[in-house]
Amino acid sequence: MNDTFLKVLRGEKAKTTYTPIWIMRQAGRYLPEYRQVRENVDFLTLCKTPELAARVTMQPVDVLGVDAAILFSDILIPVEAMGMKLEFSEKHGPSLSEPIRSRLLFERLAMPDPEDDLPFVIETVRILKSVLKVPLIGFSGAPFTLATYMIEGGGSRNFLNTKRMMYANQGLFDGLMAKITGTVISYLRAQIRAGADAVQLFDTWAGALSPEDYRVYALPHVKRVIRELAGEGAPLIYFVNGCAGLLKEVKASGAGAIGIDWRVDIGAAVKKLGKKTVVQGNLDPCTLLAPTDEIKRKAWDILEKAQGAKGHIFNLGHGILPEIPVENARALVDIVHEWKGRQQP
Amino acid sequence: MNDTFLKVLRGEKAKTTYTPIWIMRQAGRYLPEYRQVRENVDFLTLCKTPELAARVTMQPVDVLGVDAAILFSDILIPVEAMGMKLEFSEKHGPSLSEPIRSRLLFERLAMPDPEDDLPFVIETVRILKSVLKVPLIGFSGAPFTLATYMIEGGGSRNFLNTKRMMYANQGLFDGLMAKITGTVISYLRAQIRAGADAVQLFDTWAGALSPEDYRVYALPHVKRVIRELAGEGAPLIYFVNGCAGLLKEVKASGAGAIGIDWRVDIGAAVKKLGKKTVVQGNLDPCTLLAPTDEIKRKAWDILEKAQGAKGHIFNLGHGILPEIPVENARALVDIVHEWKGRQQP
Repeated sequence: MNDTFLKVLRGEKAKTTYTPIWIMRQAGRYLPEYRQVRENVDFLTLCKTPELAARVTMQPVDVLGVDAAILFSDILIPVEAMGMKLEFSEKHGPSLSEPIRSRLLFERLAMPDPEDDLPFVIETVRILKSVLKVPLIGFSGAPFTLATYMIEGGGSRNFLNTKRMMYANQGLFDGLMAKITGTVISYLRAQIRAGADAVQLFDTWAGALSPEDYRVYALPHVKRVIRELAGEGAPLIYFVNGCAGLLKEVKASGAGAIGIDWRVDIGAAVKKLGKKTVVQGNLDPCTLLAPTDEIKRKAWDILEKAQGAKGHIFNLGHGILPEIPVENARALVDIVHEWKGRQQP
Repeated sequence: MNDTFLKVLRGEKAKTTYTPIWIMRQAGRYLPEYRQVRENVDFLTLCKTPELAARVTMQPVDVLGVDAAILFSDILIPVEAMGMKLEFSEKHGPSLSEPIRSRLLFERLAMPDPEDDLPFVIETVRILKSVLKVPLIGFSGAPFTLATYMIEGGGSRNFLNTKRMMYANQGLFDGLMAKITGTVISYLRAQIRAGADAVQLFDTWAGALSPEDYRVYALPHVKRVIRELAGEGAPLIYFVNGCAGLLKEVKASGAGAIGIDWRVDIGAAVKKLGKKTVVQGNLDPCTLLAPTDEIKRKAWDILEKAQGAKGHIFNLGHGILPEIPVENARALVDIVHEWKGRQQP
């Protein structure tokens, strides 16, 4: 197995010969092979059909040559298992009916048992482990990010309902966060025990919080996830979108590896995160619209700036966009792999 | 005239007795008095009718007791004068037809003469100057932010078309930025000459850029605006939304005052911006949904952390939201005014 990704995650970059790369949303609409599968099946069914989910998980490994696969699923899958009705529309994205804004609705929420309530995820992991030649990343949304979807009922611009609950009904908010956090922990643990080699916690919306609010309302729950999974033997990557103003706090999460978005200089981020943290990121996803020379210049700049970290896993700063030409994604993988050679004459 | 706001902007905070406050979008839908005016007139007509625009500009001065008024208008008003068709819908916000993605459409764009092409703005400023008891802030969108609307044709999630042009057709992008920048300069100069006491440049979408891209594609044009207006005698505030990762670059703009959003600690921002910069901000707009005690605690925390700056103008970190109760906005103004008293026993 290609274990460069895991070596870097474990702080053993000295034992590797190049910087590993994977791409957030690497199994997705920009890939013709993925679109072909989706022609016959809707998004949620795809997530819930282990053979198909495993197939699209493997596509980018074959097509792009990335150094890790990430389980094909959606961060709201465990939320559905908590008892909310989940729907996806091409135009408006995910929606959850009866958003949680009262104690009554909160109390109805279950804490799912992954083996019983999300068996298709566990089965997908098992299938993948038997065939993959690269490490498998399991994942979950981070507690605050999941809470925003559950309280807003979908995506949001200003997170008004979430913040209203934080400020005006902290008891309910804390209760909700505790229930979500428990769910996240058992969900990730089950993925690890089924075979996931590493897990990523996606905090897509933490960047909507002021540093003080992040410290009070989001960070303690992330810390708990990290603490409770520490004994499972799989490294954890904590990705925070919009992290530029939160790096001190994010470092305090205790995560061994931190994924950053592109709106911060990776050199400056490495300085703040310190030499004991593995960093992941952080090319602007739109860069893949540029000519290859410019992609190379920007990617190599990131590779150089990240050298001060304990280790560097190359990634985009957010998910790859459906509009990106596959050949540019493939070129990026080659560009990243090529770089380390350049460093060793 | 209450000139506390101007004194702080000029670096004379020692001559003031409290921290001045105004609120971005302070004339807006959260105010019943504003909604009453809007019952009889659509948004664009309101912007273009000097008597009405002046009236709503004054409303928050009377209702809230803020220390400055900001011209009621929209950042896309000069874009319309450049020759693009502008429409607003309640649901989808602004749209500009025939977005600029080709040299042909770019070449059709005019550089408006504010006195001739935007006479209603100039007239609104003149009316306000004859009646206001607080300083008047004129404003414009910053060049990059205006470019995103012109290239995307409205708001955007990923700024894909903008970035595609930056990376793949830099000649066209630079030409567009030059035309926009010239427009911004003459537009702000005309507002100042008609009587605006200060101006604010809104860079609402600069935070979508990586620090490197900001430095290459946005900053030079902001610098030019600041340089060319330096002799006009009105201080300039440069507001950058999503600035946390850009503070070093934003400081290099040369702006005497910098407005920051709430996703960065104001104490950390002051440290990066240095003692020669006046800082403006930065309460999360959603904080105004909290109980008054919590609003006070958070506002006073900001007031204390901002003391290291050359001066501090209190503001939200972005525009006030339609859902905010007026009494909470009024309470915030009192809370800010009250604070300085606490500091002087």
